Amino acid sequence: MALLSVLTPFLAVVLCLVIGFMLVRSRETETTSPTSSGETAGAPKADSRPWVDQDLQDDTEDKGNEDEDDDLVDNEEEDHPQVPYSASGYPEETMLERSKDFYTLMNQRRTVRFISPELVPREVINNAILTAGTAPSGAHTEPWTFVVVSDPETKHQIRQIVEKEEEVNYLQRMGVKWVEDLTKFRTNWIKEYLDVAPYLILVFKQIHGILPNGKKLTHYYNEISVSISCGILLAALQNVGLVTVTSTPLNCGPQLRLLLKRPANEKLLMLLPVGYPACDATVPQLKRKPLYDIMVHI
Amino acid sequence: MALLSVLTPFLAVVLCLVIGFMLVRSRETETTSPTSSGETAGAPKADSRPWVDQDLQDDTEDKGNEDEDDDLVDNEEEDHPQVPYSASGYPEETMLERSKDFYTLMNQRRTVRFISPELVPREVINNAILTAGTAPSGAHTEPWTFVVVSDPETKHQIRQIVEKEEEVNYLQRMGVKWVEDLTKFRTNWIKEYLDVAPYLILVFKQIHGILPNGKKLTHYYNEISVSISCGILLAALQNVGLVTVTSTPLNCGPQLRLLLKRPANEKLLMLLPVGYPACDATVPQLKRKPLYDIMVHI
Repeated sequence: MALLSVLTPFLAVVLCLVIGFMLVRSRETETTSPTSSGETAGAPKADSRPWVDQDLQDDTEDKGNEDEDDDLVDNEEEDHPQVPYSASGYPEETMLERSKDFYTLMNQRRTVRFISPELVPREVINNAILTAGTAPSGAHTEPWTFVVVSDPETKHQIRQIVEKEEEVNYLQRMGVKWVEDLTKFRTNWIKEYLDVAPYLILVFKQIHGILPNGKKLTHYYNEISVSISCGILLAALQNVGLVTVTSTPLNCGPQLRLLLKRPANEKLLMLLPVGYPACDATVPQLKRKPLYDIMVHI
Repeated sequence: MALLSVLTPFLAVVLCLVIGFMLVRSRETETTSPTSSGETAGAPKADSRPWVDQDLQDDTEDKGNEDEDDDLVDNEEEDHPQVPYSASGYPEETMLERSKDFYTLMNQRRTVRFISPELVPREVINNAILTAGTAPSGAHTEPWTFVVVSDPETKHQIRQIVEKEEEVNYLQRMGVKWVEDLTKFRTNWIKEYLDVAPYLILVFKQIHGILPNGKKLTHYYNEISVSISCGILLAALQNVGLVTVTSTPLNCGPQLRLLLKRPANEKLLMLLPVGYPACDATVPQLKRKPLYDIMVHI
């Protein structure tokens, strides 16, 4: 009995350690499942979102709303008969000449932050947007909306939203690093061109479509598709002598979406102020990489 | 003393419970920080990766290697003097005509899966790549590598990798949904064009750069930049009468990267087989959305 009374404290300690250990273990199991799925990214998601490339990690669906995936429905099944593809071929010499001319034209494109207030014909902008709309897209979903703003009041509201966020970005969120990285481009948070440019084109990616019955339609690779479409838009603008600034307004998306009354399935990808270059426009003296730095032939 | 010996077991129990509780708490603090950063996405990451738009969730850095962020260094600070921007303006009527002509040309572009084996002059391809290289990019990092493959053996190895993965994708990973979505395009996992097309252009995005001293260089918005560049490449190919298939080979990236001996900072974004259309090429009879479906004017 004396022995037992001496041992009791030790038994109690052992018992408590066992209980403590079990508590810790149970906590571990609770927390590791979300944590590890965050760490291994692709693997556990592969089944629920099989169209997402495990390597590429395209954000086909809004990552914040994965629980809504169940609502996704199949694309409308349409019968698309095959038709002959009629191409306009060129003789080799013409091809070579056209390839050189197009390179020369596109190589003159620069990001120009000094835009003239001079009016630009609406039809030219419409044609540029139509051209952007010829881009390929995942499963031909055409997941883009181009909001063209020429109303001065709306342009000014856009400027206020962008400048306020940019100022916060520069002064608070960004480290010295980011500010130094951009110093060479002499940008700051004053974006006069947002008032001055005759048009602001706000490019939205539709992270999913909406069918007439309200169900969602998957938009495969929507960000890549819309970015390709922007590339074609830049080519179309350059082709008519207009300039722009390819900007991705940091953290302004939700505010601008609300201002422009776009639905929740659209997210701002790019903001392009468009117009003629100002007569005294300047650009930083940048070089582009030579062919051997960007191309490998096998 | 007797009282103390009676109380000892209770004291030991209380002490152990306190220790156990503290252990649980410390585990909690350890695990919640990665978990919550995964859940609230942008907010806690804003400090470590301030250039990532909280809304857009661009994968500027390889998400799998966030612990390596510490190695990221500033972009080289160069002095870029401002130089006058010399533009080639056009009269309004010419602009309008050019915008129409370019739209007509681009609107004829189609994804063509029937490619002729006929040889295409190398210089035309070089000029198309040069044109793609005129795209804008985050902080002018030009984060692209275009691997142009004309070697038949390498093309065949690429085909084998892509077809094997595609077959797995179609039969195992994909649900009925995905297969049905693509049925209308009559694609399957046989990609004859990967052998037949005179060129395969494999477009890699550089998820970061590497400085001469081995340090990493941040590539802001690299996926968007490279996709824009692909849009311009598609325009350049269409401009000379060549066709392609804008494909994003699902899960083949790592194997193709190794086959083509590309460094680990490069990830495959797109694979474009390029050539003349086969004389009997067909395309699905698809329509593009009209202007009022893709554009909003304010």
